[in-house]
Amino acid sequence: MTKVTAQMSVSLDGHYAGPRHDGTGSWLHSAEAAGFFRITRWATSAMAWRERQGFRGGESDVDSDIIAESFEAAGAYVMGRNMADGGEVPWGEEPPFRAPVFVVTHRPREVLRRQGGTSFTYVTDGVASAVEQARAVAGGKNVAVSGGGTLLRQVLKAGLLDELELHIVPTVLGTGMRLFDADLDLALKEAIELTPVRVVHTPKVTHIRYTVDGREALVLDDRGSGRGVPPGTDAS
Amino acid sequence: MTKVTAQMSVSLDGHYAGPRHDGTGSWLHSAEAAGFFRITRWATSAMAWRERQGFRGGESDVDSDIIAESFEAAGAYVMGRNMADGGEVPWGEEPPFRAPVFVVTHRPREVLRRQGGTSFTYVTDGVASAVEQARAVAGGKNVAVSGGGTLLRQVLKAGLLDELELHIVPTVLGTGMRLFDADLDLALKEAIELTPVRVVHTPKVTHIRYTVDGREALVLDDRGSGRGVPPGTDAS
Repeated sequence: MTKVTAQMSVSLDGHYAGPRHDGTGSWLHSAEAAGFFRITRWATSAMAWRERQGFRGGESDVDSDIIAESFEAAGAYVMGRNMADGGEVPWGEEPPFRAPVFVVTHRPREVLRRQGGTSFTYVTDGVASAVEQARAVAGGKNVAVSGGGTLLRQVLKAGLLDELELHIVPTVLGTGMRLFDADLDLALKEAIELTPVRVVHTPKVTHIRYTVDGREALVLDDRGSGRGVPPGTDAS
Repeated sequence: MTKVTAQMSVSLDGHYAGPRHDGTGSWLHSAEAAGFFRITRWATSAMAWRERQGFRGGESDVDSDIIAESFEAAGAYVMGRNMADGGEVPWGEEPPFRAPVFVVTHRPREVLRRQGGTSFTYVTDGVASAVEQARAVAGGKNVAVSGGGTLLRQVLKAGLLDELELHIVPTVLGTGMRLFDADLDLALKEAIELTPVRVVHTPKVTHIRYTVDGREALVLDDRGSGRGVPPGTDAS
């Protein structure tokens, strides 16, 4: 059965890149790029990622297996406009996806067909529509939400996400683009609950896969005292 | 050999409590408390935590073992003033530490001796001094930095921390008090690097222990292409 999945590499402090590039100078010289390169290095040095990019070599290890598994599980992708625009040139004539990609955007554009099975369809009527279009062609495989962070938050906020895999990289950036922030529109005393269903760890990165259980109200407890809710708390 | 260690329970989005209580109304009714209760529930329902609080029951499981191990490894504690003040009444006559605690504060105060081996010494000349005083009496066990977040950041920023264990709770709060933030005073293109040395996971929480390697400059790479640094990047 098709699941809607997402994965993202994040620093230990929850960033997926350095602070957003302000457009002056080249992106590659920016702190955004420096953070992004650090956080995604475990992937770009993995054989499974390199093979999809047409590069030789790389390490054939557990981290590479995680990437291979993700590519294999995806029957279609949903992607944000920034990521699609940023990738269009570097991905070249044979992008790594080898499956239909649905790009959430405000700008209508003709379908872009590439070699190796990848196509980019530009969806202008919202993220839920992109997910549905991807599901229709996923052939029973997963719909993979492949970023960036803004799109991932939209999918999570809309309750469309079944599974989230975080690749937690052991670095602290201090500042940067955060995966989870106030955009999620959670009320006070409300949380999105998840359940970790698989953890794979290497010296480079900790991969945690979660199922998304949904929004729940936060409640107090008696802190284990067995004496009921702590003093000063009403029962509401 | 004595190591300086810290541990903290955090949500998947890096918060250790809800948004800071503004002082109006009771803390227990605040969103800060609601988040804090959710994030620390795995601990308060564990037998090892309850036993130290004088409560019966609780679950005897892997999560409880993690707590027992932390208590056992600590020969002395360093604590922030907010945590010490907040705990003074609930911890009662026999606090859970059973070891000397050094409280970093601006307010001089006499040593507070409690039953069971816990004492609170108020240190007014800074966090490095508190760590040194704790080290001197730790008897070869660890100096455990036990929070809150502000103190943990100070210790990390000052390069005093050898080991950090995060207990990552599978909930997203959206807002709240963040463990890692701009207080860390990292430069752009600079990070604090760590190495994960142990991961223990249960359905409730993922425990990741890191050694702290220190500050490092972020560098670009060639993204695995083997063609050198990407175009547009200078070599500096």
